[in-house]
Amino acid sequence: MIKAGIMGATGYAGAEVLRLCANHPEFEVAVITSDSEAGQHIADIYPAFRGVYDELVLEPHATDNLLSCDVVFMGVPHKAGMLHAPRLIDAGVTCIDLSADFRFGVAADYEAAYHVQHAAPELLPRSAFGQPETNRAALEALAARRAAGEAVIVGCAGCYVTASILAATPALAAGFVNPEATIVIDAISGVTGAGRKANARTHYCSADESLEAYGLPLHRHQPEIALSYGRTLSAAGMPVAGDAALRPAPAHVVFTPHLAPLKRGILATAYLPVAAGVEIDDAALHAAYASAYGKSSLVATLPQGVWPKTGSVAGTARAHVNASYNVDERMIVAMAAIDNLGKGAAGQAVQCANIVFGLAEDAGLGGVACAS
Amino acid sequence: MIKAGIMGATGYAGAEVLRLCANHPEFEVAVITSDSEAGQHIADIYPAFRGVYDELVLEPHATDNLLSCDVVFMGVPHKAGMLHAPRLIDAGVTCIDLSADFRFGVAADYEAAYHVQHAAPELLPRSAFGQPETNRAALEALAARRAAGEAVIVGCAGCYVTASILAATPALAAGFVNPEATIVIDAISGVTGAGRKANARTHYCSADESLEAYGLPLHRHQPEIALSYGRTLSAAGMPVAGDAALRPAPAHVVFTPHLAPLKRGILATAYLPVAAGVEIDDAALHAAYASAYGKSSLVATLPQGVWPKTGSVAGTARAHVNASYNVDERMIVAMAAIDNLGKGAAGQAVQCANIVFGLAEDAGLGGVACAS
Amino acid sequence: MIKAGIMGATGYAGAEVLRLCANHPEFEVAVITSDSEAGQHIADIYPAFRGVYDELVLEPHATDNLLSCDVVFMGVPHKAGMLHAPRLIDAGVTCIDLSADFRFGVAADYEAAYHVQHAAPELLPRSAFGQPETNRAALEALAARRAAGEAVIVGCAGCYVTASILAATPALAAGFVNPEATIVIDAISGVTGAGRKANARTHYCSADESLEAYGLPLHRHQPEIALSYGRTLSAAGMPVAGDAALRPAPAHVVFTPHLAPLKRGILATAYLPVAAGVEIDDAALHAAYASAYGKSSLVATLPQGVWPKTGSVAGTARAHVNASYNVDERMIVAMAAIDNLGKGAAGQAVQCANIVFGLAEDAGLGGVACAS
Amino acid sequence: MIKAGIMGATGYAGAEVLRLCANHPEFEVAVITSDSEAGQHIADIYPAFRGVYDELVLEPHATDNLLSCDVVFMGVPHKAGMLHAPRLIDAGVTCIDLSADFRFGVAADYEAAYHVQHAAPELLPRSAFGQPETNRAALEALAARRAAGEAVIVGCAGCYVTASILAATPALAAGFVNPEATIVIDAISGVTGAGRKANARTHYCSADESLEAYGLPLHRHQPEIALSYGRTLSAAGMPVAGDAALRPAPAHVVFTPHLAPLKRGILATAYLPVAAGVEIDDAALHAAYASAYGKSSLVATLPQGVWPKTGSVAGTARAHVNASYNVDERMIVAMAAIDNLGKGAAGQAVQCANIVFGLAEDAGLGGVACAS
Repeated sequence: MIKAGIMGATGYAGAEVLRLCANHPEFEVAVITSDSEAGQHIADIYPAFRGVYDELVLEPHATDNLLSCDVVFMGVPHKAGMLHAPRLIDAGVTCIDLSADFRFGVAADYEAAYHVQHAAPELLPRSAFGQPETNRAALEALAARRAAGEAVIVGCAGCYVTASILAATPALAAGFVNPEATIVIDAISGVTGAGRKANARTHYCSADESLEAYGLPLHRHQPEIALSYGRTLSAAGMPVAGDAALRPAPAHVVFTPHLAPLKRGILATAYLPVAAGVEIDDAALHAAYASAYGKSSLVATLPQGVWPKTGSVAGTARAHVNASYNVDERMIVAMAAIDNLGKGAAGQAVQCANIVFGLAEDAGLGGVACAS
Repeated sequence: MIKAGIMGATGYAGAEVLRLCANHPEFEVAVITSDSEAGQHIADIYPAFRGVYDELVLEPHATDNLLSCDVVFMGVPHKAGMLHAPRLIDAGVTCIDLSADFRFGVAADYEAAYHVQHAAPELLPRSAFGQPETNRAALEALAARRAAGEAVIVGCAGCYVTASILAATPALAAGFVNPEATIVIDAISGVTGAGRKANARTHYCSADESLEAYGLPLHRHQPEIALSYGRTLSAAGMPVAGDAALRPAPAHVVFTPHLAPLKRGILATAYLPVAAGVEIDDAALHAAYASAYGKSSLVATLPQGVWPKTGSVAGTARAHVNASYNVDERMIVAMAAIDNLGKGAAGQAVQCANIVFGLAEDAGLGGVACAS
Repeated sequence: MIKAGIMGATGYAGAEVLRLCANHPEFEVAVITSDSEAGQHIADIYPAFRGVYDELVLEPHATDNLLSCDVVFMGVPHKAGMLHAPRLIDAGVTCIDLSADFRFGVAADYEAAYHVQHAAPELLPRSAFGQPETNRAALEALAARRAAGEAVIVGCAGCYVTASILAATPALAAGFVNPEATIVIDAISGVTGAGRKANARTHYCSADESLEAYGLPLHRHQPEIALSYGRTLSAAGMPVAGDAALRPAPAHVVFTPHLAPLKRGILATAYLPVAAGVEIDDAALHAAYASAYGKSSLVATLPQGVWPKTGSVAGTARAHVNASYNVDERMIVAMAAIDNLGKGAAGQAVQCANIVFGLAEDAGLGGVACAS
Repeated sequence: MIKAGIMGATGYAGAEVLRLCANHPEFEVAVITSDSEAGQHIADIYPAFRGVYDELVLEPHATDNLLSCDVVFMGVPHKAGMLHAPRLIDAGVTCIDLSADFRFGVAADYEAAYHVQHAAPELLPRSAFGQPETNRAALEALAARRAAGEAVIVGCAGCYVTASILAATPALAAGFVNPEATIVIDAISGVTGAGRKANARTHYCSADESLEAYGLPLHRHQPEIALSYGRTLSAAGMPVAGDAALRPAPAHVVFTPHLAPLKRGILATAYLPVAAGVEIDDAALHAAYASAYGKSSLVATLPQGVWPKTGSVAGTARAHVNASYNVDERMIVAMAAIDNLGKGAAGQAVQCANIVFGLAEDAGLGGVACAS
């Protein structure tokens, strides 16, 4: 068994990693941490773990027990990831970071998006962006380095970014999209996306039976989406600005997140203007998606005319995608449905860890959503 | 009291008109109809009416009792409105039609959108489009004709169209929007929007805890939105195609509706590309909205930076709107929150009837959403 | 107009009184208070009040502006009611107290239930228990005293107690129930019942898609129910212990509240063992209920075989009741559905105030639940 | 692998068996049937199975392919189980019947409860009641017969009955409960309990934000509960009527089911009057529960004072139980939370099949509820 630690195990993402590890064939959770709830049994905080992790007790983040793990899932907020990672890396522990701190290969990009100096830029060369379906080669390269004895870091993509990337990447990669036009992404999230902290917005009586937008005009995850789209456009040979080979310019993206009354799920709808001269139809568009995800056991392109439902992937690491072509307006409308925790945060972290440890990508992630 | 009839009173929109009339100072419901449930007490179908309308029994649509009403609210599907209206108009009964049949002043526009020949084009000259905040003058003109003894028709705007119009019209009317660019409208609706018919999609266990899109690539309400936007752009002096004075061309619109797990509410988010040469900021944008709705007691422009929540208007005829300017992408992101029945279908019908009968526009519509 | 103040207007119950007063023909809200949020506009806290109470600003509880009101609704927790009431009564202001402090005519009963000494026992003689359907005569007596110039106090029944009383009283009053047997009350509440405070239990992601019980083994509202039942049994001539005429013993009651994922609603199911020698059937039982509530415009006895749904009264001051007789076990199963705020807390407070001010009991309370 | 068939795989219970088998180490689903939807891909009906069972196509119930299975899960309504079982048993196929038809060892008991003659009474001797925690020995006896070559039948307990049994059995078995007194069971269920058929009650807009009771005065599952309780009381040496050794009389039970707005979950609250002369306290009561379920990996007795939440077991085959003693009324209030499909119908069927096939009782049932 591979010995795993989870930092921030009382947060929603950390707790979801813990849940997934309960049925994982290789990862065995030995250490869980929380500074604010250290000393408590996790089953007293989350009764769902009663009968599953009855004996597991939270330790403070500083516990040395993390240093004897093979892998640590870091369910911590941004700015915390880069503070904790060096100690773990020094001890030879591979880090699967759920914070934003290692999502950008370039410190300046991180700093521009999060308005804070990167505290551990020396670790960036041993990191990769954790979105397996669109960055599998980089993760496999990391796996090779880890196998050779190096402690490595995965900067896992967050939930909105994952959904936005899964929705749009096949169209972008196929060269269908106008690189100069503005891409609109309208996303709807369940309330777990707002985190475990109880406040006025997450109160049941505020969120229930209501819909609202938030984070306008510029949500902090917009840059991650724009950079990913820019890379894909550049790789597809579409003329984007910037140093195309190394660091392509971000795409033009307007991103608006919405909150809806459900616990888990993100549905991202991307509106992609088709490039001049490109002639496609629904069949060609669908074929591009089916081909792009053909090797991904956790991403299904739905049949033509069937649109993704988040309920069909809730509680799982799976994603459903599809796209439609509006011929009058020359606009691709592409969608992805994921569970924001099951795939977006925690499930993808386990998926990345699987790759980095040379396991089947979907090991422990075979869960199927409740059909009803 | 003004004697009112409601056709299709067992449908969600018809039942909502009935609910609103229970506290209306002037409209007294004397007749309710349903072909499929004629003979039943409405309180046996909707227990919410127990103690309110205990004696009211459904009659078939063909009942002559409708002919002695002053006004009939027609909660019927499209194609039914234009079949029933002539009989009522002949009897001198003013019609408030919730179907699509009298929303288009021009029969050809209706026929293009709904793929059916208009059955009563001779009545179109005595009709007006029922969206009071943006078409008040036409409804007041109808009121004058009704006062002079003419039976008139209001073709009430539907729920998606109302939300889309309320969200975008102030920006369009202010000349901020590029008339050649594609406007994206991404809307989220509660399940009442799918109607009372029980089917796989409206089953609790399908809709609950899930998000999905539907109606792609071209939802049947897209033409109504595009025509309304086109009229507003034209009136604002923006160069649109078509016969600008009489029948401006529709705007470029991509409209995607989504279904979310709540009963009532539509949140429409409109992405409006700013015209070249126009320089605005958030303050100017907000001022345009506040000014546009300053005289509308039922539409509130929220303070800058506060985004509409459907829960804040649920069960009411009110609307909350606001807009944000994304300066990097030169994109206005505008939003409107309504109750799809309380405002979108039924409440707006009562509001239109109020105007046509010379009452205060908001008579009987003073209900306030549950704050919690 | 009658000048009204609302203490604790930011709590759910206080805000609901404010909502109801927006459409009340006589009560005009002039003052709202909150110590923790004084100085804020109520419309900034509850956007549902935007366009309705745009100018209303919260003052501290100590404001002298309360003293010039005709009536003050006290939406405060228990122990606060009896501290604030004397100042208001001294100023001649009639108090409609939503706290528990004036629900018991006898200080000792209050002290036994709430484990605290009563701070204003001298005011108890000018108070009455605020449950109009079962205590209307006492409230009308208070109205006469108020009309004669005395400031009076109503100690409004809470939500669970109201539902439990409405469900069981007709059977108790008819002499059907064994006064020595234990009555089980199993109640289910929506989340507004847990109050506005954001905490782990009221977090959307805890309450959504889950059911739980709480407050075992002895919920603090059990004594209020048991005392009310005891009084009714005694009045019905059933042999209960205690000083039957003045202060009958409480009935035997086991009360278990549950939390379910909805905002508003309480469904109370009472299991009432039938007294030896009593022979009833469903028709006789139904007749007792219909008769008991025949004069109550806000309480409807449903047809035989139709069971109350909270959704049918949500957002209103109405109640739906019904009962069934299990002949094998000689057990009456009686139910009441209310909105815990619309009737249980705030709506009933307005109803009591209506009676005390000599208005129609249901003035301003004509709202009808959304049929869908 | 053990070759499995699922009859009625499009019903909620059948689909849940299919879901569970996707991660089962031994059961491999080879055949799924539905008469009304034969010929369709299951992934077209339930998109959650996309990427999991892409090739699986529904066959009619009469398919001979069922006859080559080792085990068939029969997700069919009552009366259908006893019609299909003989053909399967003749072919040597072990039947795990989710219908009511083999839950009663005695045909007369079935006939009294379901008002229909038993069609296959000759099969009853090779059947056992499928509630593992309280009938494990009988299921293990069946396993021995199956291992010896006999095709056997499990008549799986339904969801309400399972929750009611789990809540009350430890108290009944400990001799705490008065066998002559009436036991009240008040249960709340999610909407999946009402089945997949779309109708007025299961429409989202009827079930959402509402609570209601149904099935009064005598729900058809009451007899199964009363018989199970009677057997347990008798086994505990409590003096019940009937032929105590072979066929004890049913206990006195009033059972009221309620519907609440969630998809999955049953919370059963049982009110058990304590027998005269029995002296218990909360610690003794808790100890009885902890001891009763100490060997059941899927049932957890929560710590004293912590009450079961259905959300903590949603999507799983787990159950959470606890009990409280109301000393004033000498009443035990006992609760069980289960997922009505995950445990109540489908999960328990898999658990029974595990036992009958000699596997670990919880094989394939290790899923953990989403903590958030």
